[in-house]
Amino acid sequence: MNTLERLIEADPGRFRVLTGDRPTGFLHLGHYFGTLKNRVRLQGLGVEVFVLVADFQVLTDRDVAQDLPMYVEELVLDHLAIGIDPARSVIFAHSAVPALNQLLLPFLSLVSVPELSRNPTVKDEIAHSRQSSVSGLMFTYPVHQAADILFCKANLVPVGQDQLPHLEITRTVARRFNDRYGDGAAVFPVPDALLSSAPLLLGTDGGKMSKSRGNAIRLAADADETARLIRRAKTDADRHITYDPGERPEVSSLVLLAALCQDRDPHQVAAEIGAAGAGALKARVTDAVNDHLAPIRARRAEYARDRGYVRQVLREGNERANAVAETTLDEVRTAMGSRY
Amino acid sequence: MNTLERLIEADPGRFRVLTGDRPTGFLHLGHYFGTLKNRVRLQGLGVEVFVLVADFQVLTDRDVAQDLPMYVEELVLDHLAIGIDPARSVIFAHSAVPALNQLLLPFLSLVSVPELSRNPTVKDEIAHSRQSSVSGLMFTYPVHQAADILFCKANLVPVGQDQLPHLEITRTVARRFNDRYGDGAAVFPVPDALLSSAPLLLGTDGGKMSKSRGNAIRLAADADETARLIRRAKTDADRHITYDPGERPEVSSLVLLAALCQDRDPHQVAAEIGAAGAGALKARVTDAVNDHLAPIRARRAEYARDRGYVRQVLREGNERANAVAETTLDEVRTAMGSRY
Repeated sequence: MNTLERLIEADPGRFRVLTGDRPTGFLHLGHYFGTLKNRVRLQGLGVEVFVLVADFQVLTDRDVAQDLPMYVEELVLDHLAIGIDPARSVIFAHSAVPALNQLLLPFLSLVSVPELSRNPTVKDEIAHSRQSSVSGLMFTYPVHQAADILFCKANLVPVGQDQLPHLEITRTVARRFNDRYGDGAAVFPVPDALLSSAPLLLGTDGGKMSKSRGNAIRLAADADETARLIRRAKTDADRHITYDPGERPEVSSLVLLAALCQDRDPHQVAAEIGAAGAGALKARVTDAVNDHLAPIRARRAEYARDRGYVRQVLREGNERANAVAETTLDEVRTAMGSRY
Repeated sequence: MNTLERLIEADPGRFRVLTGDRPTGFLHLGHYFGTLKNRVRLQGLGVEVFVLVADFQVLTDRDVAQDLPMYVEELVLDHLAIGIDPARSVIFAHSAVPALNQLLLPFLSLVSVPELSRNPTVKDEIAHSRQSSVSGLMFTYPVHQAADILFCKANLVPVGQDQLPHLEITRTVARRFNDRYGDGAAVFPVPDALLSSAPLLLGTDGGKMSKSRGNAIRLAADADETARLIRRAKTDADRHITYDPGERPEVSSLVLLAALCQDRDPHQVAAEIGAAGAGALKARVTDAVNDHLAPIRARRAEYARDRGYVRQVLREGNERANAVAETTLDEVRTAMGSRY
């Protein structure tokens, strides 16, 4: 356990986390072991967790407008299913919090165009973009993210290694705002990264697990769909099961999935299957996933029968986020001298 | 009178105007004859006029934070003095209308980075910027301006020739939004430019009239200050007064100022002074300006004694603008399918 984790355990009330997802599809096991589980863990420790449904950022690179309300609702459902408690955590949507979005303007004044152009994550997005050119929204995305994080004064942001440059822009914005307008006091915290090492889970086709490729086991899937997907999963010609992600990525990903579900060491799991082959491995993974997800799926099914409640959770989260954003915006107005 | 002006006179209720200023100093005669007088004229015709105090755009290129509340208040005072009537027109500040500012996000998704880079007004701002590099706020300024104009569905924007490219971005944003999300109906009007040919008034030093150079006659100045400024105004060696802006810019600017104040032809004004020289010209200009501004200054002084009222005008304008912005944002959410 690193220093930051020790601080969190010792005094969880000092921390507020901002995390979230773009509502572009159903959440799957990659999300679950990569970040969702960690959100529930942090909530359990007593950290206040803000979960952002980043619906505006869906506009950056695709047209999902028609499906947006469905995806947003499913995203809330997924969070309720895994154990995010609306009484302790806040689930809210970008488009519902104008005072958060307004922060984009003063923050944009603190970042230069060359700084935005240099951001490697944006560069990457640009390289992978299917659009003919980059939109102004994508270009300013890291500054919008600063508004997401700083509107609620989150001081802890769970990120993967690849998202560190984004967070660096948020940290820069917070520092510059405090220097320029803070008058000695810090209006914003300079948030820390809570680096998470997302486990390397591949899609069932051996490629990157993706919401849109049909190669991922959704939290919302049932036991049969799960079994079917795993049965079709790519393996290799070697009957003897080992855990060796470098040499045998597909088999190792399946081993890892079972190990994660059972909270065990993947090498042990592989050793137990040994020469029993891919079929035995798949049976083992299917059971492990279905056992692990059973209570989550049961809760999900229960909440899914009460869509009115799901929408109410989001509505109340939006209200809570608006109240927080209005308070922050008021402080910003005072600091910037735009109170008249 | 052109076609647009005829349409306005025939049916002023069809038009809503968005106009405004950056609160970076006191308004002067250049503003008055360039745009302020036209605002009062449009209001008088029955057009609804929204006057934006663009306080966020003050951040783009200078640090006026300390003086912001004063400049904002003086700006409101100037508008009350010239005859803007809060019962018919709306005076409001950027920073007070989050729902307006939120529109920046969907609008940014409709404009590409190359389009933003190409904008000549931004290029010009960049060239004249005293900053070492361009801020994200300056870069996205034309899109923010689209939000200013479209939040209240203004269909008429008084602009000078040099601002036409800015308005073109607003028109593009409106068209693209309607095409993409309008489902056959136009959510936003595609606003027309109301081209104004601002008279070529120079500063008293012969340079560009500027809030910050001390070479401009403020609406707020008294008769003595006005006389003093005009007495010091630059002229030329030729005693015979003529109106010839190309050859004699300083003298012609003074002639024009008198003519504008008296609503007369500048050639006639010049002919009347003839060989009486610069002294006579200056006396004539001083009287003309002071006579013309007397009622405006009297109203200004009256309102200045009741600062509480001035602030109330802005507060009520902000409320009105917020109500309009919330309604528009609601329509935008419906159109974009982000209603949940």
